[in-house]
Amino acid sequence: MTGEARSPRERMVYSTVQLVRARGATGTGVRDVVEHAGAPRGSFQHYFPGGKDQLVGEAVLWAADYQVDWVRAYRASARKPTPAGLFAHMARMWKQEFGTRGFDRGCPLMAAAADLVGADSVVSDQLREGIERWEAAVAGELVAMAVPARRAKRLATLMISTIEGAIMSARLRGDVGPLTTVVAELAPLLDG
Amino acid sequence: MTGEARSPRERMVYSTVQLVRARGATGTGVRDVVEHAGAPRGSFQHYFPGGKDQLVGEAVLWAADYQVDWVRAYRASARKPTPAGLFAHMARMWKQEFGTRGFDRGCPLMAAAADLVGADSVVSDQLREGIERWEAAVAGELVAMAVPARRAKRLATLMISTIEGAIMSARLRGDVGPLTTVVAELAPLLDG
Repeated sequence: MTGEARSPRERMVYSTVQLVRARGATGTGVRDVVEHAGAPRGSFQHYFPGGKDQLVGEAVLWAADYQVDWVRAYRASARKPTPAGLFAHMARMWKQEFGTRGFDRGCPLMAAAADLVGADSVVSDQLREGIERWEAAVAGELVAMAVPARRAKRLATLMISTIEGAIMSARLRGDVGPLTTVVAELAPLLDG
Repeated sequence: MTGEARSPRERMVYSTVQLVRARGATGTGVRDVVEHAGAPRGSFQHYFPGGKDQLVGEAVLWAADYQVDWVRAYRASARKPTPAGLFAHMARMWKQEFGTRGFDRGCPLMAAAADLVGADSVVSDQLREGIERWEAAVAGELVAMAVPARRAKRLATLMISTIEGAIMSARLRGDVGPLTTVVAELAPLLDG
């Protein structure tokens, strides 16, 4: 998740994701983003004529697609892919992040949702689209592991709900323990 | 959760909970709180010499204790209390809220966590304390239903993580479906 070799436009979307993860959407100003991205000061209006809403909307979908890519990378990497293995893989991303960088940055979808859904923001559309893409990717991987489609959709809802809450819990405690716990506890259910 | 018959101080804490649930902690200004609470304009400094941090910290613990009370109310109300029944009871609060009032207001702990943990806020202490009280209450109820203490703690982590993520997912979709799904999916594991 580095910001190298990207265009100023891409860097601004990426910077938005990172800042929202730490400060929330309301706490992230356009000026902060331009500075974090090292983008030319006048370029924001040019790239994002829809203003901050457009920027945050694109950041939300960027973050969702990052999750989708991560989920899809699991099967190729696993010797014997299982639903519980996929869930452990999803948690591993966060354990690595928290282990390397500390607990400052959480899930961008959760952070944006917390600020924006109750404010009737237009970004709500991208938030819904984002979680649907992520859930569809998880369900698709489960189906590829021979879970029936209807059950796969339900398990995907469970897995994403649980991981989101465990991310929150881990950050509140400054401890990856909740991630480890939910992975171990859900394993028999997911592989059953 | 009404604001009747409370002192101005209590009303300000209560209003903070409600505003943070919809707008996040960063998006909630002291002026909004005073207005929402119908409190005398000069009273804020008097009641909260520690400023907004003190106010939000108290709001976080108020919200946690509200969850604790809700969790503890289950056993007396159930004919045959079970861990899965407790989890359904936890979800019911949110299904009622979303069914009655729509999806504007989410969990105040999640909203405050999203904004504040990455900002090294002093409120992080209350957030940690809040989730620990809530988890201890859930674990205590499980123990009262004959779940061994160590397992009760792990299941409490799972239940709170899952409910938090399902609240977020329900709000993003404008649909209580994710809450219904996680209750049904976790039931065999919780009662197993």
